[in-house]
Amino acid sequence: MSRIVVATSKPEATRHWLSVMQAALPEFEIVGWEPGEPATGARYAIVWAPPKDFFDQEKNLEALFNLGAGVDALIALPNLPDIPLFRLQDAGMAAQMTEYVVHHLASLSRGFSTYAQQQRQSHWEQLSPPNYANWPVGVMGLGKLGSHVAQELAKLGYPVAGWARSHRQVDGVEIFHGAAQFEKFLSRSRVLINLLPLTDDTRGIINHELLASLMPDSVIINIARGGHVVDDDLLKALNSGRIQLAVLDVFNQEPLPAEHPYWSHPKVRVTPHVAAVTLDDQAAVQISRGIRSLAQGQMPGGLVRRDIGY
Amino acid sequence: MSRIVVATSKPEATRHWLSVMQAALPEFEIVGWEPGEPATGARYAIVWAPPKDFFDQEKNLEALFNLGAGVDALIALPNLPDIPLFRLQDAGMAAQMTEYVVHHLASLSRGFSTYAQQQRQSHWEQLSPPNYANWPVGVMGLGKLGSHVAQELAKLGYPVAGWARSHRQVDGVEIFHGAAQFEKFLSRSRVLINLLPLTDDTRGIINHELLASLMPDSVIINIARGGHVVDDDLLKALNSGRIQLAVLDVFNQEPLPAEHPYWSHPKVRVTPHVAAVTLDDQAAVQISRGIRSLAQGQMPGGLVRRDIGY
Repeated sequence: MSRIVVATSKPEATRHWLSVMQAALPEFEIVGWEPGEPATGARYAIVWAPPKDFFDQEKNLEALFNLGAGVDALIALPNLPDIPLFRLQDAGMAAQMTEYVVHHLASLSRGFSTYAQQQRQSHWEQLSPPNYANWPVGVMGLGKLGSHVAQELAKLGYPVAGWARSHRQVDGVEIFHGAAQFEKFLSRSRVLINLLPLTDDTRGIINHELLASLMPDSVIINIARGGHVVDDDLLKALNSGRIQLAVLDVFNQEPLPAEHPYWSHPKVRVTPHVAAVTLDDQAAVQISRGIRSLAQGQMPGGLVRRDIGY
Repeated sequence: MSRIVVATSKPEATRHWLSVMQAALPEFEIVGWEPGEPATGARYAIVWAPPKDFFDQEKNLEALFNLGAGVDALIALPNLPDIPLFRLQDAGMAAQMTEYVVHHLASLSRGFSTYAQQQRQSHWEQLSPPNYANWPVGVMGLGKLGSHVAQELAKLGYPVAGWARSHRQVDGVEIFHGAAQFEKFLSRSRVLINLLPLTDDTRGIINHELLASLMPDSVIINIARGGHVVDDDLLKALNSGRIQLAVLDVFNQEPLPAEHPYWSHPKVRVTPHVAAVTLDDQAAVQISRGIRSLAQGQMPGGLVRRDIGY
């Protein structure tokens, strides 16, 4: 019987995922690993920000499963073994991200934050009817998450475009691809939603140049990685009035330091990296299916290409 | 050539819809009507809360098209002629209502209002991961609007049930129907969304008895008609803690009087009847299709059954 090891950044998370995955994979022996413990000799590892020396210990691993969609931190580890690495492809995150975006965008596009202010003054006044044409949305990154968010916003009535490295097709979404079409994509977008993977190519992509290319009074929604944003450039664009609102769930440093200007900026909404969390049930289904496929000699979905970084 | 008359509660709205509908139906002559003017002799009328004596004047009408989904006020008019009356079946309203519900429900279910408070204190803390199972949604009314809202919430991960007069099927939604199953429907619902038509049967349906039957700490979202709610009963249930939040877009008296306790109640969110407005494009498509069908002797969709009130 093949052994599986679970390793995360916190003992309680390791215990939690150990029990979730044991229930999903009763035919395997699943163990946890904590710093200082001997190697388990496991064949497969299920990881989330594992302790630094985990990969120095475990020398029998044949494949890794990441308990999340983003693998930027994992593949930056110098001792990551050169074995197949799989990331979660959705696991409930696409729906959660849609809900996050709709909630925050509607505050503005539907006037709900103005109506909340009016309530405080017992004031009844209907704003102009919603005009979705005024809020062209641009989604950067068209993987499972980006495509889903783009399609759901299009169904609500927003004109939606998407931009990705290479061409693809998403129903109801105008597609731009590659460096050549980036500028054109930005210039028709007023709501920019970032769902790119963090790679050498995309680090700092939300910089002065990008912000200056968007439509006036734009909104930035970053639910990918803090490393995509050049914070000084974003703050300048907010202060100059070029950007009217930034909704930020991820940051260059997390937790966001208490003295960071984002916290008290009137044009910034801060949430503590909660736009989407891995849901137990769906992660268990996806990873157990992956491990069973591998054990039967088949290749599961979600394989990370390290050359491109996701 | 058949003439069409537009009559609404406000001259500017009449002018607006006159121009929208003329563009959509260039083969018809379309005129507006204001109080004091002579009869236009039109064959079809497009109306929204028309002036009181409109129907006393226009005696050649063969069919009426209402610029909205709710016809409760219209069919209460004593001088409404006994000719086919059609209501809008969606016209962008289903998507807008979904957006309204997702925005307001996520404030609570996803903790976004708590995160907004935490931001004011520069405090970074992740709440427990979203557990959709804790928020069973019940949608009352399963017409085009109710079915759509129910399905979209189910796709986000909420357990959704619907209740209607008679049995029907909605993908991903557990169905209850008729008086016999009402209690059972209520007892499994923690988020109650009202999208019923207002009829003699449904007036005052959100009363003490209903509120006492829901799960503890329930949320009420009323985006149908104010007449569905017994305000004193709802206020009592909010004050006793039985209901944790009421999101109200419609009221027994509109505009909501400045002295009404809803305005300043900490557990009430007031919006000024904006959950969904009729969008020009979609109303024009639907009504123009209806008028053309009628002119060719076919029966369009959206015919109101006056015996049941919608």
